[in-house]
Amino acid sequence: MDLNELRLQINDVDKQMQELFTKRMRLCFQVAEYKIANDLPVFHKDREKEIINRVTNDAPDDLKGATRVYFQTMMDISKCLQYQQFFANADSVPYKPLILKGRHTVAVPGTNGSYNHIACSNLFDDFEPIFHEDFEDIFRAVSEGEAEFGILPIVNSTAGSVAQTYELMKEYDFKICAGTKLRISHCLAVKRGVKFDEIESVYSHEQGLQQCSDFIRENNFKTHRYANTSLAAKFIKDSEKPYAAICSENAAEQFGLDILRKNIQNATDNYTKFILISKETLKSENANTISVCLALPHQSSSLYRLLTKFSVAGLNLSMIESMPIANTDFDVVFYLDFHGAIDTPEVAKLLSELEQELSYFKFLGNYEEV
Amino acid sequence: MDLNELRLQINDVDKQMQELFTKRMRLCFQVAEYKIANDLPVFHKDREKEIINRVTNDAPDDLKGATRVYFQTMMDISKCLQYQQFFANADSVPYKPLILKGRHTVAVPGTNGSYNHIACSNLFDDFEPIFHEDFEDIFRAVSEGEAEFGILPIVNSTAGSVAQTYELMKEYDFKICAGTKLRISHCLAVKRGVKFDEIESVYSHEQGLQQCSDFIRENNFKTHRYANTSLAAKFIKDSEKPYAAICSENAAEQFGLDILRKNIQNATDNYTKFILISKETLKSENANTISVCLALPHQSSSLYRLLTKFSVAGLNLSMIESMPIANTDFDVVFYLDFHGAIDTPEVAKLLSELEQELSYFKFLGNYEEV
Repeated sequence: MDLNELRLQINDVDKQMQELFTKRMRLCFQVAEYKIANDLPVFHKDREKEIINRVTNDAPDDLKGATRVYFQTMMDISKCLQYQQFFANADSVPYKPLILKGRHTVAVPGTNGSYNHIACSNLFDDFEPIFHEDFEDIFRAVSEGEAEFGILPIVNSTAGSVAQTYELMKEYDFKICAGTKLRISHCLAVKRGVKFDEIESVYSHEQGLQQCSDFIRENNFKTHRYANTSLAAKFIKDSEKPYAAICSENAAEQFGLDILRKNIQNATDNYTKFILISKETLKSENANTISVCLALPHQSSSLYRLLTKFSVAGLNLSMIESMPIANTDFDVVFYLDFHGAIDTPEVAKLLSELEQELSYFKFLGNYEEV
Repeated sequence: MDLNELRLQINDVDKQMQELFTKRMRLCFQVAEYKIANDLPVFHKDREKEIINRVTNDAPDDLKGATRVYFQTMMDISKCLQYQQFFANADSVPYKPLILKGRHTVAVPGTNGSYNHIACSNLFDDFEPIFHEDFEDIFRAVSEGEAEFGILPIVNSTAGSVAQTYELMKEYDFKICAGTKLRISHCLAVKRGVKFDEIESVYSHEQGLQQCSDFIRENNFKTHRYANTSLAAKFIKDSEKPYAAICSENAAEQFGLDILRKNIQNATDNYTKFILISKETLKSENANTISVCLALPHQSSSLYRLLTKFSVAGLNLSMIESMPIANTDFDVVFYLDFHGAIDTPEVAKLLSELEQELSYFKFLGNYEEV
């Protein structure tokens, strides 16, 4: 057979497959309707297994694996459609509108001029920062009503995810209500009058030191970790010795330090994403990113099968990360970001489905990057 | 229709679908054979798009999304099978046997008694540690032949992935040749004679401070970051002030410190995974984990479609993580671990396929957790 003839035959097979696919989906709808009418549970694991076993058994040896995946995916698609029908009136997550105008209190890690502080000015025209040293204090400040909002770094383009922020988001029941991205440009700052050649040691946050590792190595500086880049700048101001801080120019100016070098980070494009958190679900009009956290069964292909749901709903992931669960011997939770808004039917249905199907599922917010 | 009748009809549809699926796969094999014989490129994006467009167009409105996913997955399965046929004789990644017996030099972050040092004793009966402060120095030591192996932490069950290790694995062309897991149990250690009530400040690595945050808060200690838990212990030994270190009991003993509290970490089960790296691909007999790093096209469902390949090959993921690429405005690479051995045909074929299909793909090693 030549190529054309083979293709015509494939087209013919595809036509028949499509008819059968449509027919099978309609039959599954009828099954679901029957079960709902008769108050029976809609999904039946054993029946699914029975089908998988039969078709795999009947498949020729070289197609057993492929046949299993093919039927499993088809049944997963069918299940998604049934959920869509089932949750046709799924309520969307209740939310209030996010209002950033006016004056707000925001819990901010670090001090004046910290990157968190700068990120905050991206989001608010007018705000009162309440500074805390540790990330956990930010969560506590919001939890106890000391601040309306909290701001935290979530991922950096050089140093990766901020694991502690993820961990705290899982622990506390807060929602992300906005995101913002900041180009991080570090400078080398010293107490007024200190010369470059006098510097032996540099102080900064661990991520700041990592992001400037090439510069540090070239100059053979000793490094010292500090809780925050802006607190490092403050420390330098108060220090007797010719130390230097790696911090934002903003922080250097705040503490009256001399800036000896600018843009000392390895990557010339060095970005950090920050999230704004609140107690309630607050959503801006143009919110387009949804973050969730979930656990999957310890089963082969369970992640693949989860992604089938997103694919059928036409929703695209922008981030995925498996993180170990504290206090276990490496069970994992997944953090996912995907594009969408909670008040659209496809998202409302998918969230209902995930909530229903998974042993652990947490909606973390629907927000826009400002 | 009652449930039984509906099910019989579904069974009948499934039987026909299976026949068509088998037929379609056989036709695709013939297409591939024809193309190989006539020296034509095997995969044809436009043809695939044409089919997707046609079937989506022909589908009833409520099944358009589902039909698209169904046909896309079927064609992806078919492509996997063609690759399997195509790469029937795919060479497995060349490797040498890993030999841990005898005396070896290992580059180790920190100093005597560091967790890295303890992890190393899990792997080797006899080794000469070469201590370096920074992770990048570990890579350099192996690269320059100062040490045969290097050891690094890769993920902790409380504080998450060690982003810098991932970043360096991408940058350097090294392979993981073994893994080991260590229960991390921190103690509070002081210079001989210092009393608990005198302590104001504690020194440790950032992850050590994070892992003991509850204990630190309860006692209202000030925290100071240090490059390494064992270097913090060394610093305490040499310090004049009544500081404390958070470190391993081992490190406390090495530096003759008094241990005032044991097991001070938040999670009672706190584990860290370490990897052993080498210049060449070294594989132990029972190696069962494969790590890879790859980039995916900016296309909807590209991750889902990647996982189709693993599913068809029957290979299970144990870890997935998307990480931003340094020096970009948030492009991501994916790190994946899956179960398997490079000298089995299904893995050899899958690795060839990934290498061939993806714009960026890196095999990071095949190893066993000891």
